[in-house]
Amino acid sequence: MLKLYTLFRSSAAYRVRIALNLKKLPYESIPKALAKGEHRTPEYLAVNPQGLVPAIETDDGLVLSQSLAIIEYLNELYPQPPLLPNSALERARVRSIALAIACDIHPLNNLRVLNYLRDRLGQDEADVNAWYRHWIVEGFTGLETELSRHSTARRFCHADALSIADVCLVPQVFNARRFKVDLTPFPTIAAISAHLEAMPEFAAARPEVQPDAV
Amino acid sequence: MLKLYTLFRSSAAYRVRIALNLKKLPYESIPKALAKGEHRTPEYLAVNPQGLVPAIETDDGLVLSQSLAIIEYLNELYPQPPLLPNSALERARVRSIALAIACDIHPLNNLRVLNYLRDRLGQDEADVNAWYRHWIVEGFTGLETELSRHSTARRFCHADALSIADVCLVPQVFNARRFKVDLTPFPTIAAISAHLEAMPEFAAARPEVQPDAV
Repeated sequence: MLKLYTLFRSSAAYRVRIALNLKKLPYESIPKALAKGEHRTPEYLAVNPQGLVPAIETDDGLVLSQSLAIIEYLNELYPQPPLLPNSALERARVRSIALAIACDIHPLNNLRVLNYLRDRLGQDEADVNAWYRHWIVEGFTGLETELSRHSTARRFCHADALSIADVCLVPQVFNARRFKVDLTPFPTIAAISAHLEAMPEFAAARPEVQPDAV
Repeated sequence: MLKLYTLFRSSAAYRVRIALNLKKLPYESIPKALAKGEHRTPEYLAVNPQGLVPAIETDDGLVLSQSLAIIEYLNELYPQPPLLPNSALERARVRSIALAIACDIHPLNNLRVLNYLRDRLGQDEADVNAWYRHWIVEGFTGLETELSRHSTARRFCHADALSIADVCLVPQVFNARRFKVDLTPFPTIAAISAHLEAMPEFAAARPEVQPDAV
């Protein structure tokens, strides 16, 4: 069975859980509590030198890291349901939305970054929370315009089909809610996310229902 | 002719310039000086709502953003030379290396992030430079182990062939040098980058030879 090195609250692990559920692939969760430094032990660094979650390990002991690389891999091996559209142009649009979240919003709000702001730059919780919200609002502002152009039905990020963009959107909206970002200016994002969150494959991937949730 | 919305110093635009050169695609550079806010004008936001560089515009007026989405698109349309390996597993490894740079190093060192640290959190240049170097050293530490496992010839990031990982590595090494990161602990990264930088397609993409370089 596939092993998933995960953390219930990790947005990138949440993406991979959604993809595994959509592809109906059973997996074993191996939680790594980042707050306890479990991602930096020699044992885990031997598995994943990048020292982050998520990573997956196959029955053959092959390890893959980076959520979007894992999801593209799962989509290539298990094509149903497809997580990328049929045309190169549409694939580029879907990847662009996924990357706008995975490169331009999420990395700035990672636990290790918030810890640096607190511990090394001496920022207080109000400043850290303002930082967190700032990058979500910046990213969502552009995304709202893009999604409203291409998602007229407001069910999925691109056209009227599931994609890797949807897999990235829901965990990011979860983070936005957790940090009390006002979603009123982002009605398309909120509507798409609400539709997706009601799907069982997305619901089963939620942080609070994971075995390591605290 | 393809249009490239670019900035000479943007690491993400640098990646796309390398890919365009490798694919032997002529393009017109349309510089956007981020320091002057040229990426936030209503005109540019109409083109690319994400308000960042790079973006490409086709002859049909179609616009695509996010460097890795653009590069995957170019690689699908113009397969030679291939920027992804033939097997799903190897493609995942190459994408993982590219994303380790594009998600876990570069976004933390973007101009807008450094400006936030300076202007809103009141950090001085020494703190900003320490931040910049910290994320490169963190990322390069894991990458060095990964590359040394899979790049025995030290010519390319994965096996002995060009890939999107190489396209991401060289601009990141350029940034590391610019901020005086000691590369001694990263001999595999340094050797691969030196080999790639000598290739004409990489050399022609360097920031200092772009039309908008200052």
